[in-house]
Amino acid sequence: MIADMDAVRALCRSLPGPDRDAEAAVQARQRQLTKPPGSLGRLEELVAWLASWQRRPMPRLNRVAVLVFAGSHGVTERGVSPYPASVTAQMVANFSAGGAAINQLARVAGASLAVHPLEVERPTGDIASDPAMSTDEFIASVRTGYEAVQPGTDLLALGEMGIGNTTAAAALAAGLFGGDGARWAGRGTGVDDDGLARKRAAIDAALARHADRAGDELALAAALGGRELAAIFGAALAARVQGIPVLLDGFVATAAAAPLHAMTPGGLDHALIAHISAEAGHRALAEALGQAPLLDLGMRLGEASGAAVAIPILRAALACHVGMATFAEAGVSDKA
Amino acid sequence: MIADMDAVRALCRSLPGPDRDAEAAVQARQRQLTKPPGSLGRLEELVAWLASWQRRPMPRLNRVAVLVFAGSHGVTERGVSPYPASVTAQMVANFSAGGAAINQLARVAGASLAVHPLEVERPTGDIASDPAMSTDEFIASVRTGYEAVQPGTDLLALGEMGIGNTTAAAALAAGLFGGDGARWAGRGTGVDDDGLARKRAAIDAALARHADRAGDELALAAALGGRELAAIFGAALAARVQGIPVLLDGFVATAAAAPLHAMTPGGLDHALIAHISAEAGHRALAEALGQAPLLDLGMRLGEASGAAVAIPILRAALACHVGMATFAEAGVSDKA
Repeated sequence: MIADMDAVRALCRSLPGPDRDAEAAVQARQRQLTKPPGSLGRLEELVAWLASWQRRPMPRLNRVAVLVFAGSHGVTERGVSPYPASVTAQMVANFSAGGAAINQLARVAGASLAVHPLEVERPTGDIASDPAMSTDEFIASVRTGYEAVQPGTDLLALGEMGIGNTTAAAALAAGLFGGDGARWAGRGTGVDDDGLARKRAAIDAALARHADRAGDELALAAALGGRELAAIFGAALAARVQGIPVLLDGFVATAAAAPLHAMTPGGLDHALIAHISAEAGHRALAEALGQAPLLDLGMRLGEASGAAVAIPILRAALACHVGMATFAEAGVSDKA
Repeated sequence: MIADMDAVRALCRSLPGPDRDAEAAVQARQRQLTKPPGSLGRLEELVAWLASWQRRPMPRLNRVAVLVFAGSHGVTERGVSPYPASVTAQMVANFSAGGAAINQLARVAGASLAVHPLEVERPTGDIASDPAMSTDEFIASVRTGYEAVQPGTDLLALGEMGIGNTTAAAALAAGLFGGDGARWAGRGTGVDDDGLARKRAAIDAALARHADRAGDELALAAALGGRELAAIFGAALAARVQGIPVLLDGFVATAAAAPLHAMTPGGLDHALIAHISAEAGHRALAEALGQAPLLDLGMRLGEASGAAVAIPILRAALACHVGMATFAEAGVSDKA
């Protein structure tokens, strides 16, 4: 499926839409449950959303998977992060050992966790002076993400790890939606004022360097993004093809998946921003995508942590839908 | 403990404060965990909050309890709700049978659920013309709530059921914080425009009728509230005395507990509004209490449903705190 750029483009332009019958079945059942209509708010909408993308009138959350992709970034040479680039590989080891936040959060959420490092020992090109990836490298990373999605998954949470990748994500968001480093760059893991200035400058340089790619979303993702961003794009694409709803983690994961939206109207309707990151650019990105994130807890870690925290909200929504009695079953009077 | 009004007043004026050493111990450990400082946002604050009220440097969530109190309201005679008053008792039966939303939500959250009906067959007085309860009735309900809190509970979620009780809650909020029916009344279970006008009028009549109680928070709660509100107040008080953090559900539960705040500075610091209700007055009430609710999912059901949905957020926060590796343990480089 993911042979080359043209194949990816073709796939993105023929995405399956939602199952409106499944959605309507959820809404019909919701009206009969022992509660005032609409009183479970977004919990009701979430069940309908799950049903519409799972293509089942009664959705399920038996197999929930968290995927974390990791990559290294040449742009770290420009001092855009307070952490050394070596932390990316160290954190991949920490994921394997079970010591990171996402290990705990996936367990609490009853989700499996798989971490896919993408040539972490080999940084991408410095986007301020070169493309991050060649076309072949980009396609290889998209394919890794695409193939990481297991058939039969009921819900997918997507996240990342990569020192320097908020710089790449900001550059990609700017490339897709306009604006510059000042608009999209935030403090990432906690860069100081000087570092933030370097980050903005790196983004502006990258935008100027790759200006000839404007309007070609995939070419922008190859030049401005990173391997883990390309893999997230591939995983979000695979999820859409397979009928798997997606929870997107923070700023980086959202920017990574955003080309789907930019290429195709409704291309990210199966993917919900789970948590609005404290990272500066995420709010603007959510607006550009027309999304209202589920949670706002001031998190800015990445690793799919914000997406994992949202999984129990979906479990709660589904449990109500499946388990509640109807007015008739419970002998409760409906509205006067 | 809950012998009479004076005993309750005395208890409210000698509330134990937080354990700052336990809080500091949490903060010290957080700084060593493999994440940028502060990057788990409110999850970090929540663990410190749990520790400070549990008085343990390493808090726990082994025993999480949901308590739902139910009561009937004489003011329903004025047509303030689209549902008949009989629904309160029907819903109590639905809780017992396991068919309500809170049954599903408590199970998903790994929490016990206990429902306490308070003389549901005997409505309180119509607040627009009479006190809801006599002093003795009020104290009896406070005592029921106080005694419903089991020693050894690690976290308590408080909610309610009672057709007509958003009218009582709005009247109580107005009595405590000023304003009238137009400010505090919302649509509750979904009253129409005429019903909303009747609701506002009932609240304004109640405020005029009991104006002589202004400034006496407990007397206001007896006159304007309801039995389930009094019980929530009692449970929140018991939790404070026993060192149990509390999640408050929506508008009614928050208004019910609000006298603690109004009587004593910091009197509700151990109780967090879990979810900002879609019910109109809740946002103003959260502001009056100086609180930023954890969740905003458009829910407006009551039954402790919003509080129950927040329990897994606390579990996620605690799991990170307990289970994450430190920089030293994981061999991850700290900031450059």
